[in-house]
Amino acid sequence: AGPPRGAVLAVAAVAVAVAVLVAKWRRPRPLREVLFFPCRPCCLEALLAEPPPGRPCPCPLPRADTSLSRLVRRLLSARRSLDLCIFSFSCPLLARAVHLLHRRGVRVRLVTDAQYMGLRGSQIGTLRHAGIQVRHDQHSGYMHHKFAIVDRRLLITGSLNWTTQAIQSNRENVLVVDDAECVKPFLDEFERIWEEYNPANYSF
Amino acid sequence: AGPPRGAVLAVAAVAVAVAVLVAKWRRPRPLREVLFFPCRPCCLEALLAEPPPGRPCPCPLPRADTSLSRLVRRLLSARRSLDLCIFSFSCPLLARAVHLLHRRGVRVRLVTDAQYMGLRGSQIGTLRHAGIQVRHDQHSGYMHHKFAIVDRRLLITGSLNWTTQAIQSNRENVLVVDDAECVKPFLDEFERIWEEYNPANYSF
Repeated sequence: AGPPRGAVLAVAAVAVAVAVLVAKWRRPRPLREVLFFPCRPCCLEALLAEPPPGRPCPCPLPRADTSLSRLVRRLLSARRSLDLCIFSFSCPLLARAVHLLHRRGVRVRLVTDAQYMGLRGSQIGTLRHAGIQVRHDQHSGYMHHKFAIVDRRLLITGSLNWTTQAIQSNRENVLVVDDAECVKPFLDEFERIWEEYNPANYSF
Repeated sequence: AGPPRGAVLAVAAVAVAVAVLVAKWRRPRPLREVLFFPCRPCCLEALLAEPPPGRPCPCPLPRADTSLSRLVRRLLSARRSLDLCIFSFSCPLLARAVHLLHRRGVRVRLVTDAQYMGLRGSQIGTLRHAGIQVRHDQHSGYMHHKFAIVDRRLLITGSLNWTTQAIQSNRENVLVVDDAECVKPFLDEFERIWEEYNPANYSF
């Protein structure tokens, strides 16, 4: 005599549950966030003020959930490292976010374009002055990437240069993803560029 | 008396197999391709010549597998539609790929930037002349996207403008993905822009 029918059903149910759990565990739901610009101006003091403001900012800008506030939130989620490859970086709000992370002890590394870093309004000088490591290309083509990697696990990439004009006036996109198949190649590219642009390797 | 132990094991095995299949069916392995530029010049005649060349192209360029050849292969995989939002489009090779798809009967729609479409070397004029639908922005900010959607299911996006300078000289990235969570927002953005830039809506 074999086991009763109830046991068969119980075993089958457990097997199904285990299989589903294993399948879920093997492939966690990846993060996908798509941000489009232009976005309307908004107040980011609640995110960027240090120490956090005791009362709401009195400025007239709305405290809305916008593509920019989402981008800043993603950046500020960094706990250990922020690796940046930004062609053109002149947006004061995004520079504040990077300064803030640097002061919190996050290891910030920034690669930028040699020709654009010197333009009027560029934030590269103040970031460097604050002690943030900056490297730039030394060849005639542009370092045209616009990506950020948060804690070596979150990739933020797209068409958006970090300029107020791009954020407020251009049609732009930013994609936020966390699956290793996307993040790893960008991490490798970052390390490659970081080493290639090491000042110790400059040729004059 | 219940069923024999063999039956219990058989039921459990079938249940596991079904659960695994369902899990796989629900979440197929998404496509992830990351392309970096610059890439070295290569011969694309085997892909772009029409009719396909009977013998290897005699040009001295290598027939290598490069980021550009991979990008062109992805574009040429279009069977029904190609939706393009390209800020700056001057690369003759990529224009050939688009012409080829148009002649094959693929529905090509192209959105571009009003200020950049008139620059020397722009391919927009010849694409339009061939009968490809082109629309452009009418505002002061840039239409700065650089993305393509193949058959409404494959998204090709990144920092790369479709210029020979970008392909051969710049540090650039292109991401190719096919999961709906990424593709759908870009499709919606394309349709939004396509309608907004409809000449019937022009204000003079």
